[in-house]
Amino acid sequence: MGMNSNRVEHFSSPEAQAQAQAPAPAGPESTDVSVTVSANAMQMPSLEVHRVCLPPPRTTVQKLRQRLSEIFFPDDPLHRFKDQTWFRKLVLGLQFFFPVFQWAPNYSLKLLKSDVVSGLTIASLAIPQGISYAKLANLPPIIGLYSSFVPPLIYSVLGSSRHLAVGPVSIASLVMGTMLSETVSYTEEPILYLKLAFTATFFAGVFQASLGFLRLGFVIDFLSKATLVGFMAGAAVIVSLQQLKGLLGIVHFTSKMQLIPVLSSVFHHMDEWSWQTIVMGVGFLVFLLATRQISLRKPRLFWVSAAAPLASVVLSTLLVVCLKSKVPGIKTIGHLPKGLNPPSSNMLYFSGPHLALAIKTGIITGILSLTEGIAVGRTFAALKNYQVDGNKEMMAIGLMNMAGSCSSCYVTTGSFSRSAVNYNAGAQTVVSNAIMAASVLVTLLFLMPLFYYTPNLILAAIIITAVIGLIDYQAAIKLWKVDKLDFLACLCSFLGVLFISVPLGLAIAVGVSVFKILLHVTRPNTVVLGNIPGTQIYQNLSRYRDAVRVPAFLILAVEAPIYFANSTYLHERILRWIREEEEWLASNNRSNMKCVILDMTAVTAIDTSGIDTINELRKMLDKRSLKLVLANPVGSVMEKLHQSNILESFGLEGVYLTVGEAVGDISSAWKAQP
Amino acid sequence: MGMNSNRVEHFSSPEAQAQAQAPAPAGPESTDVSVTVSANAMQMPSLEVHRVCLPPPRTTVQKLRQRLSEIFFPDDPLHRFKDQTWFRKLVLGLQFFFPVFQWAPNYSLKLLKSDVVSGLTIASLAIPQGISYAKLANLPPIIGLYSSFVPPLIYSVLGSSRHLAVGPVSIASLVMGTMLSETVSYTEEPILYLKLAFTATFFAGVFQASLGFLRLGFVIDFLSKATLVGFMAGAAVIVSLQQLKGLLGIVHFTSKMQLIPVLSSVFHHMDEWSWQTIVMGVGFLVFLLATRQISLRKPRLFWVSAAAPLASVVLSTLLVVCLKSKVPGIKTIGHLPKGLNPPSSNMLYFSGPHLALAIKTGIITGILSLTEGIAVGRTFAALKNYQVDGNKEMMAIGLMNMAGSCSSCYVTTGSFSRSAVNYNAGAQTVVSNAIMAASVLVTLLFLMPLFYYTPNLILAAIIITAVIGLIDYQAAIKLWKVDKLDFLACLCSFLGVLFISVPLGLAIAVGVSVFKILLHVTRPNTVVLGNIPGTQIYQNLSRYRDAVRVPAFLILAVEAPIYFANSTYLHERILRWIREEEEWLASNNRSNMKCVILDMTAVTAIDTSGIDTINELRKMLDKRSLKLVLANPVGSVMEKLHQSNILESFGLEGVYLTVGEAVGDISSAWKAQP
Repeated sequence: MGMNSNRVEHFSSPEAQAQAQAPAPAGPESTDVSVTVSANAMQMPSLEVHRVCLPPPRTTVQKLRQRLSEIFFPDDPLHRFKDQTWFRKLVLGLQFFFPVFQWAPNYSLKLLKSDVVSGLTIASLAIPQGISYAKLANLPPIIGLYSSFVPPLIYSVLGSSRHLAVGPVSIASLVMGTMLSETVSYTEEPILYLKLAFTATFFAGVFQASLGFLRLGFVIDFLSKATLVGFMAGAAVIVSLQQLKGLLGIVHFTSKMQLIPVLSSVFHHMDEWSWQTIVMGVGFLVFLLATRQISLRKPRLFWVSAAAPLASVVLSTLLVVCLKSKVPGIKTIGHLPKGLNPPSSNMLYFSGPHLALAIKTGIITGILSLTEGIAVGRTFAALKNYQVDGNKEMMAIGLMNMAGSCSSCYVTTGSFSRSAVNYNAGAQTVVSNAIMAASVLVTLLFLMPLFYYTPNLILAAIIITAVIGLIDYQAAIKLWKVDKLDFLACLCSFLGVLFISVPLGLAIAVGVSVFKILLHVTRPNTVVLGNIPGTQIYQNLSRYRDAVRVPAFLILAVEAPIYFANSTYLHERILRWIREEEEWLASNNRSNMKCVILDMTAVTAIDTSGIDTINELRKMLDKRSLKLVLANPVGSVMEKLHQSNILESFGLEGVYLTVGEAVGDISSAWKAQP
Repeated sequence: MGMNSNRVEHFSSPEAQAQAQAPAPAGPESTDVSVTVSANAMQMPSLEVHRVCLPPPRTTVQKLRQRLSEIFFPDDPLHRFKDQTWFRKLVLGLQFFFPVFQWAPNYSLKLLKSDVVSGLTIASLAIPQGISYAKLANLPPIIGLYSSFVPPLIYSVLGSSRHLAVGPVSIASLVMGTMLSETVSYTEEPILYLKLAFTATFFAGVFQASLGFLRLGFVIDFLSKATLVGFMAGAAVIVSLQQLKGLLGIVHFTSKMQLIPVLSSVFHHMDEWSWQTIVMGVGFLVFLLATRQISLRKPRLFWVSAAAPLASVVLSTLLVVCLKSKVPGIKTIGHLPKGLNPPSSNMLYFSGPHLALAIKTGIITGILSLTEGIAVGRTFAALKNYQVDGNKEMMAIGLMNMAGSCSSCYVTTGSFSRSAVNYNAGAQTVVSNAIMAASVLVTLLFLMPLFYYTPNLILAAIIITAVIGLIDYQAAIKLWKVDKLDFLACLCSFLGVLFISVPLGLAIAVGVSVFKILLHVTRPNTVVLGNIPGTQIYQNLSRYRDAVRVPAFLILAVEAPIYFANSTYLHERILRWIREEEEWLASNNRSNMKCVILDMTAVTAIDTSGIDTINELRKMLDKRSLKLVLANPVGSVMEKLHQSNILESFGLEGVYLTVGEAVGDISSAWKAQP
């Protein structure tokens, strides 16, 4: 066949190439933009055929190393340490592990002023929310305050997000409450329940820190946004309905979390509804929702919704104090112990029948709180154009929870609502967390008796206001519009959480998301390409009207890696394309097809089954006097074809760098030898 | 910016395009090969910029329909029925469901002669193997013969492979024996065991037929070749070791299937070893292995290994008859009932404590036997250049097992070893299966008493010879050489089967295979592209030495769909590429980077998380005065970018058809407005 002379070294490695070509290309250094471009523009296209290279040869160890470094260190965390002195490396190392060393030297009075304002603002939100979320986890309210004191302090030393406001959050509280309450009741076995809560917190911390330490942070990526939208909406619905207990004043309420038992609890105890509670609860709920709407519409008025919970707590407490003789039905928080967090490391529970439950609860709350914390940190980092190191954040959050579990705290993370307030209030560094912790400290030491008459209904109203913001129906509509399968994952997690259970709902949604990936792999797209006249561009015939078929060629692009899971399908699908093309040619009295070109640009990987398929296809087409040609196989595919000795069977004229060169070279060979 | 005039309708659908361009392209019809090519060759390249099209608009229903037809009907099974008369459609339909109608009209005496020869050959193999494999499944030997009679007859009506020899196979027998024996012992509860075996067979058939009927045949693709190599080797080792029971004459033997209990059974009962059995067994084993080697080396002598088992059975039976007074220790098969398969539909077991076991066993043996049957059918079909419809074969195999379970047969499928003999003996159609069934019929009716003195050791020797062929160490070496992760899947299934259990070993191996797909998706390749001077080709800089960087541009190719599972990684990885490029430029005193081009050719799909990532990346680079440009997004990606309104934010100069056009157009715009 009339091949060009430079096709001899068709399968050369870059080394061999470099030797073969004496004058190495000058590189971009010597030319500037315009020169390069005009050189391209002036160039005559030719039938010159370029070699398809194998990637530079590497040993298995080198490959493994590169692979592992992409898996575990994609962000190249050590790049800052390169070419530094010994002392500088130490400083950088300290800064790496304790971000406080990074910003502390440059900390100024001006920054402090912003941080004090924002810290006090989030404290006014954190105190009522802390008490409410602890109730959500079926824990004593004081635990919520404890959890707003120690973890923020630790985070202010270890954390790298400047805007994250740390403390208990609704989702993790809710999940912990549900999972523990289904086995152990707080009212019946309060000590065991507390032990399990601290132990779960400890395991959540261990799990989070080890994900970060082992650089397995990508695990949380499997909770896709679609899944989380559905999950949070489902959880918000359940939580809001559960708050009807407080808002309606019901005494006997289910500890289950599914929609049906919760609704039946509400309507089977209508005799327990207390009208005084309902009037007051609904009133404050309307007030809180109204302030939320104001802040949503005018972001500058963020302080309205930030101050509203504390204002409601104060107001409702005063109301109850004034009216306590007239409305005896309203339940209040009651006595809260004064003083700092007591140590709780002696309450960790490492053996016994409920250990598995504690570990499971820890892992699920750990992964959920991690997802929220990392997502919130990334969101605000993107707004202020700095980067948050996911794995480092995981270690910070994990260590903070481990420490928390030894000082009477339950699971904490960065809260979305409080972080948003923190950001809007002008927080500059993590010092705002420390200021918040100090405010909580003052509360713990001196103000606890003031909560004696705070009614439970206000906690319910605060929780409902907080979780209603989690129902992001607009995101769900967008999912439906853009990606039906993402919407399905969202719907599955929503319904799963609502009707089955939190962990199972999440598992189903993750399953749907993974199934979606597998489906794309199992049934990849194959498209027929045509030439855009006057160019070397080959594009999808059904998408580009101006693309035309090249006679005697069938050009197919395979749009997925070729794996065991799709090799049979691709084999049959490609044969079907050929059959359909031949039928079309026959029915239109066209000349026969002579060559099938597979555009491998998007075949980003291949396994042994895929290689067998390519080989079988080649043999099968050979028997039918059809030539099979590969265009532009990527490096790893080329390598595997070479290693399995398939490349030799394709020969020199079987692999081309571009579809255009393949068409040009093969047609000119046909012309030379008709 | 100096955009070309035809950029105005940048994002036009094909319809709009067709209207905009009055003279439609002439199409390939009017030109012949050489003209097209020389036209391409003479064409001046220009800075002309081509539109990026949206795919033709389709409704959700149309999309769903297309998707479903790709998932379930990739082979377009109805294409033969198109444009046919009513009568012809009926005939084709009959032929479709009963392939017998396809070949029967053309059946000739010549074909029959070949089929008789091959049918008798496989019968001589099927009878001793049938008896042996039934022992492997802990079933009475007669069940093995029953299973070699009814299923082949049914297959000869329904099956579409011409070379498949149907009957019991080692893997399925072994798995059924293992799974049932771990719960129910044949020696203690023979009736229950038989009931469970038939029920499992029935469910295997139902499962297989429904996979075929629901066109879910791709499920078996998830058992990749790598997994099967490991699985079969592991099973072969276990089975061979278990046959030491027969070969050494041990009476007390474990019913477990793991390596350790089997080995301990062998060595803890050394007092039961019988030297007469050992001498005779090893003698015949060596004979059988030798004949196997002969046939392997010289395929024309296939009949040597095909005839050897029957010859050994006859010889060993004669030996035992002659020596029975002198060697009383040798165990023989004993009495076998004469006569045809008794009906067993009354033994199917649809309720009770072991139903779940029967269903599980049925599904696992069903999927394994299906995998073997389909793979064998495809292998020989490829050799003779005809196609086997996987889904139709599944229905045939499934119906044959359902019928089998009602006539005292256990799980059957196409056996690799017997099919190879069948092929070599010159089988032309499925009639050879019918001939084989007839031979088995004669045996069942008249020859059963002859097996009375057949020693068990010969069955052990036959099984060992058969399964040793399943250890494909060369395939394992090739896996190691070509794909380390495939080798890992292979190793996992090997060790899993050997040390844990058959279903768990398989599950682990499938898990590893799926993990491999997910890993590729989670950590996709990103490469920096450079221009090959004098062309519009942009290729991997590290692979192509002659590719050069384009100043002021960073061109990145993303080699995977962008999903929730990799969007965070890609976001960070792209930022790292930019950071590294900027550091390199700064340290080498080069001009700044101004534009990042993402080559999206290999991004074959995107989900909502991916879209958010692209959008965020664009915003983030915008803040750093870097332009983000997409090159060649595929149809579905373009569609989603459009639906989510991201395309507008990229604007006219944000999406190009090729990298070359992007570089050319943007640089000339810079030149125009410096």
